[in-house]
Amino acid sequence: MEDNSELRRASSSSMHEQLAVRLRALIAQLPADSRMPTEKDLVDRYGVSRTTVRRALGALVDEGLLVRRQGAGTFVAPQRVVHPLDRLRPFVSIFSSVGKQPEGRILRFEWAENPPQLAALGLSEGLLVRRLYTIDGAPQAVADIAVPGPFGTRISRSQIEEHPIYQVLQDLGLTLSYGRITLVSQGAAGDLAQHLGVETGHPLLVLSRTTFDEDDRVVEHATYHLLPDRFELRLTVDAAELESVSYSFSRPGPELVMKPGIGEKG
Amino acid sequence: MEDNSELRRASSSSMHEQLAVRLRALIAQLPADSRMPTEKDLVDRYGVSRTTVRRALGALVDEGLLVRRQGAGTFVAPQRVVHPLDRLRPFVSIFSSVGKQPEGRILRFEWAENPPQLAALGLSEGLLVRRLYTIDGAPQAVADIAVPGPFGTRISRSQIEEHPIYQVLQDLGLTLSYGRITLVSQGAAGDLAQHLGVETGHPLLVLSRTTFDEDDRVVEHATYHLLPDRFELRLTVDAAELESVSYSFSRPGPELVMKPGIGEKG
Repeated sequence: MEDNSELRRASSSSMHEQLAVRLRALIAQLPADSRMPTEKDLVDRYGVSRTTVRRALGALVDEGLLVRRQGAGTFVAPQRVVHPLDRLRPFVSIFSSVGKQPEGRILRFEWAENPPQLAALGLSEGLLVRRLYTIDGAPQAVADIAVPGPFGTRISRSQIEEHPIYQVLQDLGLTLSYGRITLVSQGAAGDLAQHLGVETGHPLLVLSRTTFDEDDRVVEHATYHLLPDRFELRLTVDAAELESVSYSFSRPGPELVMKPGIGEKG
Repeated sequence: MEDNSELRRASSSSMHEQLAVRLRALIAQLPADSRMPTEKDLVDRYGVSRTTVRRALGALVDEGLLVRRQGAGTFVAPQRVVHPLDRLRPFVSIFSSVGKQPEGRILRFEWAENPPQLAALGLSEGLLVRRLYTIDGAPQAVADIAVPGPFGTRISRSQIEEHPIYQVLQDLGLTLSYGRITLVSQGAAGDLAQHLGVETGHPLLVLSRTTFDEDDRVVEHATYHLLPDRFELRLTVDAAELESVSYSFSRPGPELVMKPGIGEKG
């Protein structure tokens, strides 16, 4: 889609914001790692100043849609890994959306009493596993997996090294039934920052999942710490129970006061 | 739950990491804005050095679980607004999870041709609305709402000022059916950073939603830019179609080589 409509100087949006909107549409159509047009090309194409082009490109870099590579130019940021949230699936399977097979490296394998993620579920002990996912050596995510005692006790390190936790649980004869998922953003603390190659406090997308079997038993709790510019989560929800909405926003700030008209007494 | 088990010096986790784990469990049980015990209290309670206490608290501040208030101490961070993703609902309704009524302020109300969020859906023009949500004057989220031409043309500024978009669409006689949602984390650019009171590039949780009516027509596209430490998204997914998982991680690094035994020839 070539966008030939001109940027409008009279618009309520500034020129660089209007240009950013056009460029976002352009980026959406380009494959990852595409080289963006040069500043000069963009100046010519959109009839704006070089300052306007720089501000628009800078905003898109800040948003994570573009990346600058020293001496090489500006490129469309790498494609995000798509995690569909329509049903339970092994985490590793989502990397197929970018045509990659990640490597898994076990950073932790130990028994723990009262780890908080299990204690919060009313369980007292279990196996704790930390796995680092990398693609071509680049960190993507860290998983902290806790398997409650009765199941964790039957799992070996080599099973965990070789296979996703869902496969290991299925190999134990468990039938996975459903999962509860929460998503937040949280700063990377200590070790985690180091493993993911980011600064301490760098915000991560954090997906926590509790998996239940057909007897409603918790069979695992996993927390996935995801690099935020690398993942996209998708789902479809329906309006089955959407009642008629009724809500009125309160108006912030002072009420509009009508000035007394001419001739009236103040 | 009083946690009396001692921190173990022999553990593979460092002392400050073990303490952070205990404190996370403690925080999970405390209401928002609770004052945390002082450094000295924690030193006495867990039998660790002040340095260990400081490192553990620092990590939890980095994660966003605790906030430091100048001269007043360290507190449990404000409760997150819970956004259940089980079905379509008006965005404003999620604030009831923290017992608050947000204010809505319209920052934009204009007609646009080929805005990218509509163009991506094959639609050529529509009404663009930007709403800032605040609670007690503090910014929470910015929504960018696009309503396609045929519906947007019938919506007034005062309808948008007073009511959530779902209510306005229902008032037009539309029946909302389902929505497609994507979630990413993205840096805050320009205006958006300003409205939310964060630095440019500050990562936001970004929820995009396309809503369809019973005739499968797109009736709105909304992008919610959420302050990442304020929101938690929740859903339950089932394993209905979870096939038996089969995946083997490739092993990074060199293969384990068995040393030749004594008496064998190298």
